[in-house]
Amino acid sequence: MPNTLGDTGEKQAIEALIQLFDPEGKFRLGDDCAIIDMGTEYLLVTTDMVNQETHVPEGTGGRLLGWYAAAINLSDIASMGGFPLGMLFAMGLPKALDTEYLADISKGMKDCCEQNGAKVLGGDLKENPTISISGTAIGLVGKNEIMLRNGARPGDKVFLTGRLGNQLAWYESPDAHNLEPLLKITPRLKEGQSLAQSGVVTSCIDLSDGLSTSLHHLAKASNVGFEVETESISFISGLSDADKEKCLHLGGEFELLFTAGPRAASVLGNMVSGTQISVIGEVVDGPEITIIKNGQRSVLEDRGYEHFR
Amino acid sequence: MPNTLGDTGEKQAIEALIQLFDPEGKFRLGDDCAIIDMGTEYLLVTTDMVNQETHVPEGTGGRLLGWYAAAINLSDIASMGGFPLGMLFAMGLPKALDTEYLADISKGMKDCCEQNGAKVLGGDLKENPTISISGTAIGLVGKNEIMLRNGARPGDKVFLTGRLGNQLAWYESPDAHNLEPLLKITPRLKEGQSLAQSGVVTSCIDLSDGLSTSLHHLAKASNVGFEVETESISFISGLSDADKEKCLHLGGEFELLFTAGPRAASVLGNMVSGTQISVIGEVVDGPEITIIKNGQRSVLEDRGYEHFR
Repeated sequence: MPNTLGDTGEKQAIEALIQLFDPEGKFRLGDDCAIIDMGTEYLLVTTDMVNQETHVPEGTGGRLLGWYAAAINLSDIASMGGFPLGMLFAMGLPKALDTEYLADISKGMKDCCEQNGAKVLGGDLKENPTISISGTAIGLVGKNEIMLRNGARPGDKVFLTGRLGNQLAWYESPDAHNLEPLLKITPRLKEGQSLAQSGVVTSCIDLSDGLSTSLHHLAKASNVGFEVETESISFISGLSDADKEKCLHLGGEFELLFTAGPRAASVLGNMVSGTQISVIGEVVDGPEITIIKNGQRSVLEDRGYEHFR
Repeated sequence: MPNTLGDTGEKQAIEALIQLFDPEGKFRLGDDCAIIDMGTEYLLVTTDMVNQETHVPEGTGGRLLGWYAAAINLSDIASMGGFPLGMLFAMGLPKALDTEYLADISKGMKDCCEQNGAKVLGGDLKENPTISISGTAIGLVGKNEIMLRNGARPGDKVFLTGRLGNQLAWYESPDAHNLEPLLKITPRLKEGQSLAQSGVVTSCIDLSDGLSTSLHHLAKASNVGFEVETESISFISGLSDADKEKCLHLGGEFELLFTAGPRAASVLGNMVSGTQISVIGEVVDGPEITIIKNGQRSVLEDRGYEHFR
């Protein structure tokens, strides 16, 4: 009988928490953001934590760390099509931390917020043996525009923004000069907003845990399956077949994965807010997720990053 | 020249962050909650972190810990007169943590939220060497009702809800049976809402860092001073004079400290939503805060709890 988080892993632990907090599934706890009905719009609230030991490679500069802590939260607002209003940060920091490093963290947060239309509105500062930063992002989205995870229907096409693989270099060679592509991620806010306003998107999620895990999340929430073709996925240049295979499971990509009706491709074209979008597959009856490579079909397992494992 | 957080301390570090994020003071970063204009009302958002090493005594049960992590955030909503809508929790947890303990933490959060009219709406779960829990509480308050820190005027009376001293036993004798009064705190939400609706309150804050620190916060924000009489403060029974003196600086009390016009006492009476309120002093021209004990006047220093010190 499993009795530690290391035994159960993150996914099972989250499942148990959702059961406890929301047994009837009324509050959509599994989504990227919490949704609060504000009358004419929905308020989106999300919180994501960055911990030194598990997320912050040795040698990460404060600015990069602050940027990352802001960006991962803003990405959750993006995946629902929201406009960010502001952010708060609760920081646990060691007593011995250089105040210059804290200033750099804060500048990184501020840069990321300002470049994405958000403001730093508050926070909390506490002593802790290692750096731990919890960001909270608040946003708004029109009630008719919100993108959820549960609307994909068989026959819809599966889309992906941008190109995969920016993070791979650091995983292959964890050098300081590969830190920037790993952490200086771009929340796809404009893209998410355009997609939400297009009216053709049926489900959306960001890739924070990797493509395979995100496909599994969408499949489960929408009660469907997927057929995805490796050849249709856009990767950065210079990747081998083995590299591309790894990228299917790489956590820390922050592109948007979404589904839209069969005629949506003609509405959306191949760019959204200046970012390339690709049709990578199709929604099918569930629950299986199939990856097709050179005509060979195989089951795409959920092998994205999982905490405590 | 100070260069670590241990050198500067929490207050100076927060001051520097506020200067960076909001040099013109437009976003009220020093207040208990961030305030977002939603048209007819203000949205209140606050985040507070609880870390195992600095906040969680050895032997603390999960339910008590979860309750505390929720309650300290709801107290910030209370101090502005708000109605809580929901909470999110970002948790950093060790791999070896017993899943039963996590279930207990979650039950404590849920109990506290439900008993205070809030719902757990989402969160995040990450691996971390020690337990770190960041709560985020979201609330609403009427634009004409919000209580801030900056409205105290000379001639106003100073009020305090409840009685001080519940936390003292644990500080004097950190035994397991003294944990409950330390951590099972009651956010003064109903009291805050009634006070906000009374229309007579000119400033308000909770006592999270202790009475002396909270008085200093109000004094600074309102640009006033205070004269407070020890004899007018309500303490739990059985405290010596030395105990009472300690309670003036004890962090972790969550009563509301507020100011109201000279005739407010007749409007408010001596109870608000079933909780006793006491007039403990008067607002005077600043910046000094004077404590009067047996007719003896002395300066009340800011000696509440400060992180990194």
